[in-house]
Amino acid sequence: MNLLQALAAAVGEANVLTGEAAAPYLTDWRKRYRGRAQAVVRPGATAEVAAVVRACIAARAPMVPQGGNTGLVGGSVPSRPGLVVVSTSRLDRLGPVDRQARQVTAGSGVRVADLQRHAAAAGLAYGVDLASRDTATVGGTVATNAGGIRVVRHGDTRAQVLGVEAVLADGTVVSDLAGLPKDSAGYDLSGLLVGSEGTLGLVTAARLRLVEPLPAGRTTVLAGLRSVVDALGLLDQPDLLAAEVVVGPAMDLVCSALGLPFPLADRWPVYVLLETAGTPRLAADSDAVVDPRVWQYRERQTEAVATLGVVHKLDVAVPLDRLDELVAALPDAWAPYDGYVFGHLAEGNLHVEVAGAPPGDADVDGRILRLVASMGGTVSAEHGVGTAKTEWLGLCRSPAQLAAMRRIKDALDPDHRMNPGVLLV
Amino acid sequence: MNLLQALAAAVGEANVLTGEAAAPYLTDWRKRYRGRAQAVVRPGATAEVAAVVRACIAARAPMVPQGGNTGLVGGSVPSRPGLVVVSTSRLDRLGPVDRQARQVTAGSGVRVADLQRHAAAAGLAYGVDLASRDTATVGGTVATNAGGIRVVRHGDTRAQVLGVEAVLADGTVVSDLAGLPKDSAGYDLSGLLVGSEGTLGLVTAARLRLVEPLPAGRTTVLAGLRSVVDALGLLDQPDLLAAEVVVGPAMDLVCSALGLPFPLADRWPVYVLLETAGTPRLAADSDAVVDPRVWQYRERQTEAVATLGVVHKLDVAVPLDRLDELVAALPDAWAPYDGYVFGHLAEGNLHVEVAGAPPGDADVDGRILRLVASMGGTVSAEHGVGTAKTEWLGLCRSPAQLAAMRRIKDALDPDHRMNPGVLLV
Repeated sequence: MNLLQALAAAVGEANVLTGEAAAPYLTDWRKRYRGRAQAVVRPGATAEVAAVVRACIAARAPMVPQGGNTGLVGGSVPSRPGLVVVSTSRLDRLGPVDRQARQVTAGSGVRVADLQRHAAAAGLAYGVDLASRDTATVGGTVATNAGGIRVVRHGDTRAQVLGVEAVLADGTVVSDLAGLPKDSAGYDLSGLLVGSEGTLGLVTAARLRLVEPLPAGRTTVLAGLRSVVDALGLLDQPDLLAAEVVVGPAMDLVCSALGLPFPLADRWPVYVLLETAGTPRLAADSDAVVDPRVWQYRERQTEAVATLGVVHKLDVAVPLDRLDELVAALPDAWAPYDGYVFGHLAEGNLHVEVAGAPPGDADVDGRILRLVASMGGTVSAEHGVGTAKTEWLGLCRSPAQLAAMRRIKDALDPDHRMNPGVLLV
Repeated sequence: MNLLQALAAAVGEANVLTGEAAAPYLTDWRKRYRGRAQAVVRPGATAEVAAVVRACIAARAPMVPQGGNTGLVGGSVPSRPGLVVVSTSRLDRLGPVDRQARQVTAGSGVRVADLQRHAAAAGLAYGVDLASRDTATVGGTVATNAGGIRVVRHGDTRAQVLGVEAVLADGTVVSDLAGLPKDSAGYDLSGLLVGSEGTLGLVTAARLRLVEPLPAGRTTVLAGLRSVVDALGLLDQPDLLAAEVVVGPAMDLVCSALGLPFPLADRWPVYVLLETAGTPRLAADSDAVVDPRVWQYRERQTEAVATLGVVHKLDVAVPLDRLDELVAALPDAWAPYDGYVFGHLAEGNLHVEVAGAPPGDADVDGRILRLVASMGGTVSAEHGVGTAKTEWLGLCRSPAQLAAMRRIKDALDPDHRMNPGVLLV
């Protein structure tokens, strides 16, 4: 039995895609990363995933898991020939909401927006929200430890995960879906799998915390401010639900590129979008508008920047007391190109988008990421490392840390079958 | 240079203890676990810890880290001859509180109560609190992923840890103290070290989240209830700050053993201690008293049970929808001995204390832990596995999970120098 036959035996012939049918799975939504694969498989249950992994082991074929394919770092498309793409699209089962424990089990192929609706129907909410909610999946957000716009309120994806079920590189299944909020019996395998980008195992489901819905009477404000320091001063608010930042030129771009009216009377160096349960406290000299529709000036940034072509997308974070210095230094780092900056203020997490640089020009990425690392920051706050940032990981992780990560990878995936080329090279 | 000379070179002769001076480090506070050691060392800085580890590597001597020695599972006293005890007592540096980021760096030897006071002086609080706060250390609570009485409000120790610094088994130092709340650049080594009980590395410091202090106007209520189900019904409260449970006989014992007045008019099957920011909602037919002093009926349980001798202490958790069934089934499991049950209601985490059983009688532990595991529970919710529960870990972890844990252990500590005999055997 060859690989395709074994895969068909595992998931059914209809769920083994090759040729034209496989094409949509071989490039990301931005068409930034492309690859080839032996096949795309769509298992419909955990046991089918395990059978796929066993078939790939027998054929010595490496695998790349793929969720909504909204990733930005090339982590879910084939980075080399000979891979099998394991799509989680059919692992889309949503379990019943346990209202007392405030938990739910979701298959890794469940879309974030579907999970949000499922929780809302039970009077609760899922704590992670991000602009790609209609396409991004539970598995993808778990694999990258996705952040988004509610981290300031509810924490990152890791903070929502009570446990995961995953198929490891040897085809065994580890399952931690009992939903115990406290468990100190051994190493936190689930926590290790969160953020491991499919390189240690293939996440098939997650047991997730649910939270109180956002208060109905919340207030959304967009404020113009003189500096990043002034913006950070707004974080000390009771009941803060969101705190997003847009640096001047990015606000101009979203208005001009998408034909939106400028939201304030004046232009400011920095804009902050705040959402609070009560009335937000603002600085006396800031210019502000209260209107939930101001979200579009933040959420449509990606769309606005995309009008400039395939931009370089970096996703960095620095300690809050270095954020002002970073914003001031970025233009020199991205010159001679243009840069646009927006992000999640409370976590010091900026999206730095560089337009005009050729896709293959890694120098500009290097200049920006070295700057970030020199301030104690990270080369990826929420997108993950993927294939895009493997060469930069050493800027923010020491040789001892990288060696420990490699030992873990080699221990759990000695033949490097799980998403090779991603995260560690 | 022999081992003692090498250790003296690493930490100074005054900080290498042998003979009588070492004795207090060789048994736990309950005198339940005792051992022998080649020496006790007290490094005063991370570089000294690394030098100790290198000296132990050269001498092929395994190590056991020790914090406040308040552990209950034999995880921090020598479990076999030939070990070197590495006391964290001099790693007691508390860094400045970053009020904007709400973070602080604490050495692993800092006592939890000192950390709490340090945070309070800056108008903030540390989110973990537990009865052993005056003796337990940051390192010990990180190593066991300690829980305590505020998990319902702030999460477990893992939820407070932004990153750790640790010396690995090869003597290298991994440091993750930048305090980035979002970081998706590689595997979560810090998260893996949390709860690993010193078996993967020796934690020297942690970067910790701080939280808002508890509201001054909080209300503490002790309520008598007819059942565990009724008790669980009280969890749906706004602004819940604590939710502890005491099962009937344990309330009788704490009163009789410590000479405390019975707190309510009547005796009830179950008692719940609730703390809320506002006025708690209670069931119409419950008997309740509002008084912050009711905390003693929960916090002095350990002291009350200790009057019965060296009891068997188990620390289990089950999903909330099985908690009632567990409490009902426990007396059959601990018969013919007496059992006392109290714990943390919101996490389904019960302390089951069995009096009268000989220390060496593992059968009673086995009966209770098998019952817990049959309900999808864990053999340790917050104390850790230590040496006490290694034989039971397989009740709640599958062969695939145990195999993955062993692979991680072997990868990071191939010679099993870090706390051998603990967690995995």
